Amino acid sequence: MEQEYPSPLLEAAVARLSSLPGIGRRTALRLALHLLRRDVSEAVALGQAIMDLRRDIRYCSVCHNISDDEVCPICSSAGRDRSTVCVVENVRDVMSVERTGQYNGLYHVLGGVISPVDGIGPDMLEIDSLVERVRAGGIGEVILALPATMEGDTTDFYIYRRPEGVAGLRVTQLARGMAVGNDIEYTDELTLGRSLLQRTPFGV
Amino acid sequence: MEQEYPSPLLEAAVARLSSLPGIGRRTALRLALHLLRRDVSEAVALGQAIMDLRRDIRYCSVCHNISDDEVCPICSSAGRDRSTVCVVENVRDVMSVERTGQYNGLYHVLGGVISPVDGIGPDMLEIDSLVERVRAGGIGEVILALPATMEGDTTDFYIYRRPEGVAGLRVTQLARGMAVGNDIEYTDELTLGRSLLQRTPFGV
Ligand SMILES: [Zn+2]
Ligand SMILES: [Zn+2]
Repeated sequence: MEQEYPSPLLEAAVARLSSLPGIGRRTALRLALHLLRRDVSEAVALGQAIMDLRRDIRYCSVCHNISDDEVCPICSSAGRDRSTVCVVENVRDVMSVERTGQYNGLYHVLGGVISPVDGIGPDMLEIDSLVERVRAGGIGEVILALPATMEGDTTDFYIYRRPEGVAGLRVTQLARGMAVGNDIEYTDELTLGRSLLQRTPFGV
Repeated sequence: MEQEYPSPLLEAAVARLSSLPGIGRRTALRLALHLLRRDVSEAVALGQAIMDLRRDIRYCSVCHNISDDEVCPICSSAGRDRSTVCVVENVRDVMSVERTGQYNGLYHVLGGVISPVDGIGPDMLEIDSLVERVRAGGIGEVILALPATMEGDTTDFYIYRRPEGVAGLRVTQLARGMAVGNDIEYTDELTLGRSLLQRTPFGV
């Protein structure tokens, strides 16, 4: 055979699947051949779910969490403490904090952390919109729940020092009960919940 | 939040992705969020490739390898030795043998091996069609290239003993240079190629 795979259709599926992070060509081939053994309806549903997700997903205009509405259920909930904003790196981290059951405030999803090595500057993150939220009033505490990494610390300091920003508010960060160098999503629920309860004033 | 994910679209994509083998819900979430960070066109192309693969793929009517035509390029090639048929478990194994560059005959893809534990009997495999191919004439050697496992051995013996089957032909099997218990796809190309060259008469 001149081509690696016996079918351009298979070749295309393997190429697309292996463009996903952590999926090499061998795994992609395994997934593709698995799909070939299942019902057509199953493969169609998977393909459709992927397309629908990317085409139709929306983000909350307030906190930038994933949302099917203009404002997400958390931001529009009457039962949440609207004076506290927990700043997280990404959508996964919102889910992680929610699962602890220890937090009843709002969120602000930055969409990343400052990383000069990766070319990610503050202007590429939702930091301006955080400052605007704070300046609009009604917020008494900002909890910095960013990763316990150098990039997370850098971002913490950047937000803390924004002159027109969070100064005058209570600014806290998660207790460093979580292992240094770890991402939030890999911290177990108990530890993460305790870190939330024991959050400490920032800069102390 | 009452639901685990902030969006039914995300929930649906994670559910579908995590139905794939080796992909848990955490990995599925990671893949879904990765797709959200990429261009719409990329997610659409992935979804479409998955649907097209399953809906439009065809199998060679002779050897049952994946093929975009009624008869695959190997079976219809003038340059291949039509008197030798290499019997393999699945499509991946055809690719593995092709990559050795040591084989120029035809194939027969069984679609599995006999496994009473998994409820896979001979009637669920392409064994009848192999016997028909052999009875139609023109085949001088059948190479059994099934996994070096108990299931592979069972299937070897079943094919070998089919009374109206391969008796009278030269029946060989891959030299057991490959580690016992290993699948063919995990055998490196050099070892697999040597196993092909040193194939031995079956039953000796
Ligand atoms: Zn929101
Ligand atoms: Zn064929």
